[in-house]
Amino acid sequence: MEEEAAAAATERRFDESFRREFADLVAWRRDVRRFRPGPVPEATLDLLFTLAAFAPSVGNSQPTRFVRVDDEARREAVRANFEAANRQALGAYCGERAKLYATLKLAGLREAPIHLAVFCDEATEQGHGLGARTMPETRRYSTVCALHTFWLAARAYGMGVGWVSILDPGRLAETLEVPADWSFVGYLCVGWPQEEHLAPELERAGWQARTGHPVIRR
Amino acid sequence: MEEEAAAAATERRFDESFRREFADLVAWRRDVRRFRPGPVPEATLDLLFTLAAFAPSVGNSQPTRFVRVDDEARREAVRANFEAANRQALGAYCGERAKLYATLKLAGLREAPIHLAVFCDEATEQGHGLGARTMPETRRYSTVCALHTFWLAARAYGMGVGWVSILDPGRLAETLEVPADWSFVGYLCVGWPQEEHLAPELERAGWQARTGHPVIRR
Repeated sequence: MEEEAAAAATERRFDESFRREFADLVAWRRDVRRFRPGPVPEATLDLLFTLAAFAPSVGNSQPTRFVRVDDEARREAVRANFEAANRQALGAYCGERAKLYATLKLAGLREAPIHLAVFCDEATEQGHGLGARTMPETRRYSTVCALHTFWLAARAYGMGVGWVSILDPGRLAETLEVPADWSFVGYLCVGWPQEEHLAPELERAGWQARTGHPVIRR
Repeated sequence: MEEEAAAAATERRFDESFRREFADLVAWRRDVRRFRPGPVPEATLDLLFTLAAFAPSVGNSQPTRFVRVDDEARREAVRANFEAANRQALGAYCGERAKLYATLKLAGLREAPIHLAVFCDEATEQGHGLGARTMPETRRYSTVCALHTFWLAARAYGMGVGWVSILDPGRLAETLEVPADWSFVGYLCVGWPQEEHLAPELERAGWQARTGHPVIRR
């Protein structure tokens, strides 16, 4: 009996029913830019942060730093940052593509109740540098895994996350007054989605359809 | 009735039982370096690639390129690449840390039945550059999300994935003869884990314990 209990504590299998639901979670996760009003329960947010901390990290360095942006003046500065970067991005397109770009809604920075800036601490001593010597960018990749875990977990709770990357990272770091060793990875709008969709908004808008990833052999 | 069917097709909610299982998936995912012999079914691999393609990508650019390495001479070159980089990494530690580092098993490159090198096509025209103007690294971050989706899905099938980053990326690209515009993101060993654990191997070995991520306010 003791051996059985020990075995149970060192095994965790998942069945076909869970796999199907997990596939649905992955397929129904969206980059959300349209939020309906309503606060997010603090207990749920805490749970999402806890789950994000289980994400893989190089050398177990756990370099992710979440910055929750509540201050209205800072939020306004982030929106101005986005709008300037988005105007410049629009300027790089011509003709029909430019017209289409101008119609896209690319961030929910006004509507989302929660703003999270996600950084990677490049100077952390956690993990003692293991695995990051030839590829220091793996620290930032670890932060991406934490961000992605947060995103999937949020979707499991019916919440929506939108990743904003149309920002000047240097200006953002100034706005948020973060340590110099922190690299900006992504800015997340978090809240309740207005709608749920199986197809990405950029696909529905005619910007870019799904193609899948090639697998080549060597 | 028709309205109900339409509503059903545009909503997907997850219940508490799924959320608990998803939390277990995240907690029980490990970086696996110890594989038992045995092939991985091709149908399962295909499914993991399909799920990985649902990962978020900047502008829906889907820049991930999987390279499946089967050729024994190339695998040997990858192992030599790892061993050289690992010797150099060991040289950067002193005293007890160096002794501990030398005891760690950091890759399952000999035992894993499947080797996958994961690249990001920096020059893809998919997505038309949307979202990547101020932060071109978001293309590589998209590839990390695809890799992480593959990893979680593999764990749901009882499979193990180990991410090897102790490699010289330039030498690896030469070994695998990939296009010059492809950036190396990670090398995955995939197979059946010898053991399952709730605690990371680096924690069990006394290298680095879990601490969680700080959330600061601004």
